[in-house]
Amino acid sequence: MLTYKDVPRVPYTTAGQSWPEPGPHDQYCLDYMVRFVGDRVAAVAAETPELAEQALSLIKVNYEVLPAVLDPRQSMNPNAPRIHPEPESYRIHDATRNIAAHLHAEVGNVERGFAESDLVVEGEYIVPQVQQTPIENHIVITYWDEDDRLVVRTSTQVPYHVRRIISPVIGLSPRRIRVVKPRIGGGFGVKQEVLLEDICALLTIATDRPVKLEFSRAEEFRSSRSRHPQILRMKTGVKRDGTIIANQMTLLANTGAYGTHSLTVQSNTGSKTLPLYPCPNIRFEAEVVYTNLPPAGAFRGYGVPQGFFALESHIDEIARQLGMDALQLRRKNWLKEGDENPLAQALGEGKEGHAQIIESCGLPQCLQIVEDKLNWQEKRGKGGTGRFRHGVGVALAMHGTAIPGLDMGGASIKLNDDGSFNVLVGATDIGTGSDTVIAQIAAEVLGVRMEDIVIHSSDTDFAPFDTGAYASSTTYISGGAAKKAAEQVRMQILDVAGRMLKADPASLTINNRIITAPSGQTVTVSQVALHSLHVENQQQIMSTASWMSYNSPPPFAAQGAEVEVDTETGVVRVVKAISAVDAGRVVNPIMAEGQIEGGSTQALGYGVCEEMVYDQQGALLTTNLSDYRIYSAVDMPHMESYLVETHDPFGPFGVKAIAEIPIDGMAPAVANAVADAIGIRINQIPLTPERVLRAIHAQTQNAQR
Amino acid sequence: MLTYKDVPRVPYTTAGQSWPEPGPHDQYCLDYMVRFVGDRVAAVAAETPELAEQALSLIKVNYEVLPAVLDPRQSMNPNAPRIHPEPESYRIHDATRNIAAHLHAEVGNVERGFAESDLVVEGEYIVPQVQQTPIENHIVITYWDEDDRLVVRTSTQVPYHVRRIISPVIGLSPRRIRVVKPRIGGGFGVKQEVLLEDICALLTIATDRPVKLEFSRAEEFRSSRSRHPQILRMKTGVKRDGTIIANQMTLLANTGAYGTHSLTVQSNTGSKTLPLYPCPNIRFEAEVVYTNLPPAGAFRGYGVPQGFFALESHIDEIARQLGMDALQLRRKNWLKEGDENPLAQALGEGKEGHAQIIESCGLPQCLQIVEDKLNWQEKRGKGGTGRFRHGVGVALAMHGTAIPGLDMGGASIKLNDDGSFNVLVGATDIGTGSDTVIAQIAAEVLGVRMEDIVIHSSDTDFAPFDTGAYASSTTYISGGAAKKAAEQVRMQILDVAGRMLKADPASLTINNRIITAPSGQTVTVSQVALHSLHVENQQQIMSTASWMSYNSPPPFAAQGAEVEVDTETGVVRVVKAISAVDAGRVVNPIMAEGQIEGGSTQALGYGVCEEMVYDQQGALLTTNLSDYRIYSAVDMPHMESYLVETHDPFGPFGVKAIAEIPIDGMAPAVANAVADAIGIRINQIPLTPERVLRAIHAQTQNAQR
Repeated sequence: MLTYKDVPRVPYTTAGQSWPEPGPHDQYCLDYMVRFVGDRVAAVAAETPELAEQALSLIKVNYEVLPAVLDPRQSMNPNAPRIHPEPESYRIHDATRNIAAHLHAEVGNVERGFAESDLVVEGEYIVPQVQQTPIENHIVITYWDEDDRLVVRTSTQVPYHVRRIISPVIGLSPRRIRVVKPRIGGGFGVKQEVLLEDICALLTIATDRPVKLEFSRAEEFRSSRSRHPQILRMKTGVKRDGTIIANQMTLLANTGAYGTHSLTVQSNTGSKTLPLYPCPNIRFEAEVVYTNLPPAGAFRGYGVPQGFFALESHIDEIARQLGMDALQLRRKNWLKEGDENPLAQALGEGKEGHAQIIESCGLPQCLQIVEDKLNWQEKRGKGGTGRFRHGVGVALAMHGTAIPGLDMGGASIKLNDDGSFNVLVGATDIGTGSDTVIAQIAAEVLGVRMEDIVIHSSDTDFAPFDTGAYASSTTYISGGAAKKAAEQVRMQILDVAGRMLKADPASLTINNRIITAPSGQTVTVSQVALHSLHVENQQQIMSTASWMSYNSPPPFAAQGAEVEVDTETGVVRVVKAISAVDAGRVVNPIMAEGQIEGGSTQALGYGVCEEMVYDQQGALLTTNLSDYRIYSAVDMPHMESYLVETHDPFGPFGVKAIAEIPIDGMAPAVANAVADAIGIRINQIPLTPERVLRAIHAQTQNAQR
Repeated sequence: MLTYKDVPRVPYTTAGQSWPEPGPHDQYCLDYMVRFVGDRVAAVAAETPELAEQALSLIKVNYEVLPAVLDPRQSMNPNAPRIHPEPESYRIHDATRNIAAHLHAEVGNVERGFAESDLVVEGEYIVPQVQQTPIENHIVITYWDEDDRLVVRTSTQVPYHVRRIISPVIGLSPRRIRVVKPRIGGGFGVKQEVLLEDICALLTIATDRPVKLEFSRAEEFRSSRSRHPQILRMKTGVKRDGTIIANQMTLLANTGAYGTHSLTVQSNTGSKTLPLYPCPNIRFEAEVVYTNLPPAGAFRGYGVPQGFFALESHIDEIARQLGMDALQLRRKNWLKEGDENPLAQALGEGKEGHAQIIESCGLPQCLQIVEDKLNWQEKRGKGGTGRFRHGVGVALAMHGTAIPGLDMGGASIKLNDDGSFNVLVGATDIGTGSDTVIAQIAAEVLGVRMEDIVIHSSDTDFAPFDTGAYASSTTYISGGAAKKAAEQVRMQILDVAGRMLKADPASLTINNRIITAPSGQTVTVSQVALHSLHVENQQQIMSTASWMSYNSPPPFAAQGAEVEVDTETGVVRVVKAISAVDAGRVVNPIMAEGQIEGGSTQALGYGVCEEMVYDQQGALLTTNLSDYRIYSAVDMPHMESYLVETHDPFGPFGVKAIAEIPIDGMAPAVANAVADAIGIRINQIPLTPERVLRAIHAQTQNAQR
């Protein structure tokens, strides 16, 4: 058994981000104090899970019950209980007021903008805490290998960060740690958090035995991570013609007991959303506050779905107040190719001197598709007065593609005897299919078939460094590394083939494994391999390359929903969900559509039914998939996904991101559709029957007054 | 169960050599015919070894007994039973006469040389079949991995050759095979043979289960490989002053039932020995013959110990007939720096246009050491007439360092966060310490400590190609690859450090992990790693390199023995064994001395006690380590090993080979010492009591006639 008395008190963060991690280092492996129901108290290892459970049941913990605070507004009060009293924690913005992180950025002068506006619209929008619910919960296996090095086999999105982060916590140098990610059952950001690896490793160190540690579903709910709940206030000034001239978003986020990702998630809420509507005066401010609830962290979308729920609900509301078509208002104000994201620099994202210019933007085509497929002109504003009312809603979204000037990937490619290639990448396939996409990219460059590529990913010993599976970066960044390495290997192949065929390497082509000279003579890639290894000069054809980008070309989406609202029960049924996404060049259309369908479905859950609910003491009530209802097969609407291909100049083959953008706009699209159906804007999701019914009743009562 | 009916009949060779393997492809996974007692008949897999044994005992094999031939002289008779009647076998020199391989090389004209000589000395020398007896017998584990690829975890010296060789035999493309060599218990050449991998793999393919297959010690004796027994005839013409003007070696070798390595082993017998005494007329001829005995193959020394037993016994005999000091005769004739190995080219070794010039030769120093330490002047020729007679003997040896223009190695080096390096090499450490030596080389170039190097070797998926652990090549070839890759990585480190320190990279030094600018400012290697990965340009510092050599710089040795012969029992006790070795620059002196001690000891066994003995039907009688007596702790003489450092221009840091040279000269040194002690030359090893006593009795009878 390990308790806080057995482990060194090293402050760290569970956020698997590039070094040095920007967020607060406020966590300890095990601590003298527990900060939420579900926090770590002790760890037990035994020969069987049953024995371990029995041992756990024998532990008696004497708690001194401290005052708790669950509401973020109360938590900021200087008299509130202090959640992180430790002087050694660092990067906490203001521990005395429980403020984990604070963000402020202003371009122009919003107050002057509001003063010059014809109409100023304000609104408050509330988004819930929801859980990533990957099919496979967190699971780790640790053991000593034959060289007395610790192998950490873990369901992670960030193997290299795991190695670096647990190193000081477990007291082993990174060189003695090998992190391997086998096939895993999804991540959605929650596996960008280093949650079990340290404890599992310490148990192996303590026992000299292999140890397996796995969250149950209830533990995954209670003790892993979630999406930050936020209260967002929008204030927007427009001219009579709809031109936005001032836009302000201020938010209060509840990060729970620990501040992992608190800074960067909330930064994204502003920086990835507000630039969608460029205007001279933009202001963004965020307070991220500790409470005694289970911590929020990284979740697909990473702050952006929150921001777009507020922004895209608010745009519809502005259109309503202006008496304008909601799509027309968007078209009037949206950003265009050549525009710049000013907020990114203001928030310190990207590298100095590298402005984030929009080089490709398929928004017009995306919105046109959604408008058409939703039958907007015909269906909008036709909710009627019956029990079942239909409405349509649309929302736009943009996102980033990797973190500019920070994310990187590496690839190492080796040609084998039989014309196959070992492609070693640090990139982490968490079920997204990134192994497939990287293999496609390598095969394309090398002129061979997919089955000629043997891909190995996510092993810190063998593959070059990669920042990991986050920020929708893998195809762009790791794919770029694979492309660059493949280009170098291709040159080596052509060099040898040129001597074999007595031809200028530059004159050769490779197609379907066959290298052809202008004379028509050919050799196969396998023949080149054997020739190089065994006949001529004995060279292993092989190369390694790194890739990063100072640019984060945004993908765009338009998403639309048609809903049916049962005004007697408050049930919102989504009838149709349309997404049109500009993700640049699409490497694998089937998998890209899968990303759109998956992201849209998670967003439907976010908008309609998912919410973590606590009792008065802060104990989570929704700890299983019956009480916490995700959007499932029976709920599914008719869903259509469209890919609008653009060609962005920065990424390999013109790619942009696909992984997160589809989760950004669907919830506000549904809320806008509900508003269209029943004539009431509900500013809080999920749109549960209770909440919808309450809104309908309130309106009826207002009308009766 | 698998029999020959369950597997395709693909001819292959078990010799793990560079593609295309030069020797006969005369073996089948399982065949309708067994060619020796110990040949494969059927394979059984079961849940436990006991069940498998039980299943084996239930197999009834109906043999049609064919005539067998055990003697190589009889085997060449066209009327002898034909051992390989298969038309599809290829590269068999003459299947109708059971000749697996034939070699012939002549420089000058030996017949004219003999005619011009003052004295022509002839002699026949016979060397036994001996076994490598590694501590760990052959063992293989095969299983399917999660990507439906076959993992072959095997005690091999040649992982990449295993992959290529078993591929057609088991019907899986190399890309679906991953070969891993874990820590293994020695090889000595016998694990350069691919003996169990194919059967084990086929059992996994048949059962979809992991399978482990392991030789017992008796199976290792009967069914693995051994040193080729040879009958060598020497004929040498000298001038009265001792100048050798014609030298001829003809040999008949017994390769047993299969011809693995038959060509190259016997080629070495001439090409690595005869050039020790350059003279205008040299002739070498070899017949390698099939018999129905367990096959010979690769064994440390690889034909050279056989050749030197004949040559160095013969030189002593010539000296005796000339009345010259045996060392003086050697000094008069030995090769010198700047000389060329003419036989290498004549035998087709090395690449055209790349003469094998001797650039470094420490023979004079080596022989002086042995002469001194053996007290040669005082002890030579003082055998006396008592029961216990003492004698001293010396032999010289030379060897090769890798196969010129053919052996290659690759290395890939990656810098980690903490200033450690993952060094991936195909090189195969079979207990020789090559992992250590390669780590030393990398650490030296990179300016870091040994513990900063995390070495990974012998995994076909992750490491670049390497021809494997044979031909004493690893430090020279794979070490060269590691040095080259490390130099590239060092340049990348200095490049980043130069920007960090605002200094010219060329002005920087790295010592003990610290990079220092002329200004005195420093950064650590770990700081450079973090800066490169996370701060500046996001580059994984990493490189890959291949290395090969057109040169095979010979190591040299002088070896000496003092023996005590009990003339009543015939027991030869080696009292003292001295070796002085020129292996170029020595990277790790302790391990190099270990190589000398180990090689010398194996050679003492070869000379004094080891021999595989058969019954009349060709069944091996010596199938355990009691009946087959290796030289063991209680037999050990006082042993001294000296390293004479030279600096050869071709290898990394001036290294040459160390692994095989110490096994080459000790057996003839003992035979020469015995001849010195008792005045009788015994031309056959091992010098068992029976053989010595018989020689003494024969001489006594001659004297009495």
